[in-house]
Formats: sequence, C-alpha cells, structure tokens
Amino acid sequence: MSTLTVPPPQCLKRPLHIPQRHMFGPGPSNVPERILEAGTNPVIGHMHPEIFEVMNDIKSGIQYMFQTQNKITFAVSGTGHTAMECAIFNAVEPGERVLSAVNGIWGERAADMAERIGAKVNTIVAPPAGFFSLEEIEQALSKYRPVLLFVTHGESSTGVLHPLDGIGELCHKYNCLLLVDSVAAMGGAPLYMDKQEIDILYTGSQKVLNVPPGTAPISFSERACKKIFSRKTKPVSFFLDLTWLANYWGCDQKPARLYHHTGPITAFYTLREGLAVLAEEGLENSWKRHESVAEYFHNGLECMGLKLFVKEKKARLPTVTTIVAPHGYDWKEITAYIMKAHNLEISGGLGPSVGLVLRVGLMGCNSTKANVDMILAALKDALKHCHKSKV
Amino acid sequence: MSTLTVPPPQCLKRPLHIPQRHMFGPGPSNVPERILEAGTNPVIGHMHPEIFEVMNDIKSGIQYMFQTQNKITFAVSGTGHTAMECAIFNAVEPGERVLSAVNGIWGERAADMAERIGAKVNTIVAPPAGFFSLEEIEQALSKYRPVLLFVTHGESSTGVLHPLDGIGELCHKYNCLLLVDSVAAMGGAPLYMDKQEIDILYTGSQKVLNVPPGTAPISFSERACKKIFSRKTKPVSFFLDLTWLANYWGCDQKPARLYHHTGPITAFYTLREGLAVLAEEGLENSWKRHESVAEYFHNGLECMGLKLFVKEKKARLPTVTTIVAPHGYDWKEITAYIMKAHNLEISGGLGPSVGLVLRVGLMGCNSTKANVDMILAALKDALKHCHKSKV
Repeated sequence: MSTLTVPPPQCLKRPLHIPQRHMFGPGPSNVPERILEAGTNPVIGHMHPEIFEVMNDIKSGIQYMFQTQNKITFAVSGTGHTAMECAIFNAVEPGERVLSAVNGIWGERAADMAERIGAKVNTIVAPPAGFFSLEEIEQALSKYRPVLLFVTHGESSTGVLHPLDGIGELCHKYNCLLLVDSVAAMGGAPLYMDKQEIDILYTGSQKVLNVPPGTAPISFSERACKKIFSRKTKPVSFFLDLTWLANYWGCDQKPARLYHHTGPITAFYTLREGLAVLAEEGLENSWKRHESVAEYFHNGLECMGLKLFVKEKKARLPTVTTIVAPHGYDWKEITAYIMKAHNLEISGGLGPSVGLVLRVGLMGCNSTKANVDMILAALKDALKHCHKSKV
Repeated sequence: MSTLTVPPPQCLKRPLHIPQRHMFGPGPSNVPERILEAGTNPVIGHMHPEIFEVMNDIKSGIQYMFQTQNKITFAVSGTGHTAMECAIFNAVEPGERVLSAVNGIWGERAADMAERIGAKVNTIVAPPAGFFSLEEIEQALSKYRPVLLFVTHGESSTGVLHPLDGIGELCHKYNCLLLVDSVAAMGGAPLYMDKQEIDILYTGSQKVLNVPPGTAPISFSERACKKIFSRKTKPVSFFLDLTWLANYWGCDQKPARLYHHTGPITAFYTLREGLAVLAEEGLENSWKRHESVAEYFHNGLECMGLKLFVKEKKARLPTVTTIVAPHGYDWKEITAYIMKAHNLEISGGLGPSVGLVLRVGLMGCNSTKANVDMILAALKDALKHCHKSKV
C-alpha cells in the first residue's frame, strides 16, 4: 500500500524537447555547441583542486574582460540580479545614502534593492532614450552626498550606452563609490574598469559571453573593499557576504578556502569556455565587431524607413538596438509574426519603453552581418504581412 | 595600438579537462549522462512557452517529491543556501522571533541568516550526533513563542535524520511556521510535506536528484503564504521576493507572468530530467533503496570494526553516513589516500563534526550495493596503508 497522496506526474514521462531558435532579443543569446559541450564535463567536488583551477581561470578571464587587476574578482553563483544584490548588499549599510541614475529599468531596480536594505535612496531620472552628463551627475553627487552611485552602462530596456569617462573621478571627489551594471554591454562595448575608476562592476553570462544564464562576473576595487571590509553591520545575506565569497574564490590572503556554498559547477565550466572564446577573439576585436555590425544594422533599419529610438549615435548600445515601434502597427503582432514565420526572437519594450520600441539583441557570436540581413528581411516581411491601421 | 592594460590570460588557452571521479562525499553526487545531456538542449528565452512548460513540469515534479499540493512550489535560481535565504527572507520580518534547532551546521547557518535581517533569534542546541524530542521542541516553542522554527531533516554535517512527525502540529499549536531543510535527505528518506504540516520546505539539486548544483526546489504552505503576503515590510531581497517569484513561476492567480529575472534555463532542463528519473523509479522505491543500501553499508562498516557516529539506528541519515574517525589515524590521510588510490571522494567532518568523523554520501544513482562494496574495499585498503599511531 502506497503512503503517497501525490502521484508521479504524467508530464515528466514526455522526453524533453527544446527547439532551436534564433535568439535576437535582449538576452539570453544563443549558446554555441562548444560552450554547451563544456557543460557536459563530469560534476566533481566544489572544493576539488581541479575546480579551484577552473575558478582561477574564470577570475583571470573576468579580469581581462573587465580590464582590471582587482584581486576581488569572481563569478556570483546566480544571475545578473544576484550580482546586483551582491554589490548593493555589501557596499551599503542601513541608513546610508545611495544615488541611482535612472534612465530605464535597471536604475529603478537598483533603487528598489537599496531601499529594501534600509538605505536612503535618491534618484536622478532621464527620459527613456536619455543619459546623464557629467554636470548632472556632479550636481547630484554634491546635493545628496551618497556613499554609492549606480549607473547602467548598457540600458537594455532603452538601448542606451552610457558614457562612463569621468564619472569615477567625480564619485571619488565626493567620497562616493561607483557601481556600474554592464550586464548588456560587457564585451560588446569598450569599458576599462581600472582606468575609468569603477569601484564595483558586474555582468551576466547570457549576453555577449553566449553562456547559459546562471553565473554573474563581478569585481570590487580596493576602495570598495576598504569600505566593505570595515562595515559596522553584517550584510543582510550570508550567501552574498563578500568576506565569505572572497575566501571561497581564493581572493583573500587567508591560507585555507572554507566551505561556503556549493557553486554551480557545470555553469562554471560553461562560463570558463565563454571567457576563453572572448580571449581568443580579443576584447578589442569583439568591441569593433559589435560596433561595425551595429552600424550596418542601424543603416539597414534607416534605409527601411524605420527610426532608431536613441537619437545620439554615440549613445547607441551596439549589443541591443531599440527601434521606434513602427507607426500604425501593433508591436505584439510584429514580434509574434517574426517568431512564427522566421523562428526568430526579437522583443518589445521593457519598463519605461513598453509599447514604444522593438528591441533586437546581437550579442557575442550572434553579432554578424549575416544575422543582420536575416533580421532586416524578417522585419520587412512582418511590415508587409502585419495589419496596419489607416492613420 | 592596443588600449588594453590587462592581456588575455594564457590559462584560458588550455582546453578544459575534468576527470571522472566517484563522488561519495556529502555532495555534489555524480550526475548521470542522461541528465548532463539534457543540459545541452538549446538555450531559448526564459519567457518562451516551451520554458514555461519546463517550469510547470518542474513544479509538478517537486510537488510529487515533496508530497504536497501547495500551489506556491517552484525552484529557486540558486543553490540550497539561496533557497534557505528565500525561506527566511520571506517568512520573517525584522524584530520577529525565530527559533533554530541546532544539531549541526545548518541550524547555525539559519540562525546567522535570521539575525542578519534583524530577527530576534533563539536556539536550542543538541550535541553533534543528537536531535530533538517533541517535548524539547514544545518547551522551546512555549518559552520563546517564535514566528518560525527551523529544523534540519538531513543534517549532512553529523549524519542525523531528524524525525519530523508531530513537529508541524506543535508549531501550529503555538502559531508558528515550520521551516524544514531537507537538502541532504529529500528523495532518500520519507517526508510528507502536507501530512507532516511543514510550512516551508526546500532541497538542493545536487544530492539525491543527481543534478548539477544551481537550482533549489522550494514550497510554501497556505499558512506560510498567508503570513508572507500580509507582511508590513518588503523582504530584503528583490531577487528572492516571493510575490515576484510566485508570479514568475505562474503560481499566483495573475493573468500575466512578468519579467523578474532570467532563470538558469539549462539548469532547469537538468532539474526536470532529475525529477523525471525520480518519478520513473517512484519515491517510495527510492526511499527503500536508500534505506536498504545504507543498512548494508552500516553493517559492512561495523563488520570492519568501524563505529557509526549516530548511535540511534532510526536517526541515521540513509544518504550521508558519518563514521567515527578511526582511532589512531589522521582522517585527512585516509580521505587523501582514498582519493589518490581509488579516485573516490569521501570527506571529513564539517562544523561541529570536524576531526570527529568521516562522511560518506550515497545519493540517488550512487546508492547501490556495488558502490558500498567499492567504498568498504577502499576503506580497508586505507586502514592498511595509512599511518597508525601506537596508542
């Protein structure tokens, strides 16, 4: 007689089948065979020497990708949001002031996260396709005197690439740390963590790196560590406590690496492979490729009579392009048609850009002129087949 | 002229090579080919209908494994520690009282996590091989009046299987929620979430399920949801906020699933496969197999003259066995010898059991009599070859 009240589910008897699909939305991007294969390496212990070596390789790969010599550089066991919380949870104590530069969804989420841990949060807000000048940032720094400024390098919701030169110096003039989210831009647009005086920087695995989602590279400057390691209170999260994580990743000076948590070992294999691919191509080559493919794409769109959402050329994100939603069309019909007829994902807006744009991501191995041609053809086809109101 | 100051790391030029190894420590356990292969399915969008179907399958699989009909049942995008924080962050508000039953490392960590978010924490403490009677638990509940009691079902640091019958009823008598950690026992020892009135329950993927680490099944009872969804304060974590997660997993009644975070898609594929394997064998068959293999193992150990760390037979965890560190030997030499000579991981103690025990895990597909024979032979060989002091 069974003692079970819940029977085994029938749905699990069906073998898993996932179709191939062109992933040209804002992420995740397509994962090449080589990287998926790396994930089939055997799972061994998270404290075995071979895994420590994989983790060391990952650290070196991230230092290269971020252009930093920071000792405290590693991958968070989680997604970009986990890295975001790792940065904020460690850098901010309750009652401290945080300034978030909001020009899309990410600045809003950073503000929300900081509020949840009891920080006093101020924001400066730019319109969806906009960004902030050094003057605007300095004015806000001098007015609010925050301990941390959050800036989004690649605003995937609006398609804006935020210029970073000079912000780090300004922050340090006002004794503030600079936290940069480069989830959507990293590897696809120039960024120099050390030269640009960025204190905390993170990205995700599933964008330019073409690695399955689940790990998030992050790095902390000495200035950031100085504040973090002299906190009066413990960070709210044990799992994301930098003291523990730095030890787990062998970034501190302690003789032994202690058990903290069980890292996502197969995800480390795939992350290492993605970093190896980037190192093979070379960071500057990757930046150039993304730039020239984006330019080719943007020209093609304008030739079709479509408008780019970000007016200023230099502020256009080369990894995620926002196109003004074509007049008279329902954007949902366009994305659905392209998915159905072309097996190709492009997406609508997110947060402040909902209803205003179509978003197309060309990241890592997806950033090729052949893919641009495929997308332009799909868009032309959609504009022909979808309903257009008579306005 | 390159603008880079950090060159591409040489270490990433070496192809990744990870050896096969018998993973007979307390986890991660070996991952069968079938499950690794599931992870090579293409990465598509985290909001695509095929992925929602995978997530629905996972929910059903977890409801079966947990023996629960709870609607709010899903997998956290992270490891067991993330699930632990997800439970505590949502169930507890600052200033509320939490009671942690400490008989090993997990009760200590739960207490630490609750303290970090401003809870008032009390503990009851049992010696490393011990556990708590219903009388002890009732006494503490009536003394401290906590909103949440934390109990570890499978204490992997000490090898104790905690009896669960009656604890839920006691908690509810005192208007307290019962949170159970079953990372190390789930699927390998009987547990009935609904019948045993457990309010929050979680496990990890890398133990009995034989899935790579990186996802953590969790479930919340209606009673737990009632408290959580009428909180006065927001949980400290946006990433782990149950309101968002329940929507992302389609567990709430809302018409649309909103973008919350990018789930670890390939890890969902492997988790689904692990749950399918469990459903194929049947939960009760899995419990019985773990029990009989553990008994066979424990007999074998006693025949060799080795002592089990947990005296009471019914409190021995069938998934992780703790053996009293053999007298006169250095336990580190034994585990190192077995790794070197037999390519087989067994481990030393953790937390309160460091130096006191050897720990052997036989979880999921690893729980076979053939593996027991292999381990007993390796242990005999080690005791012959390792140094013994003349005591």
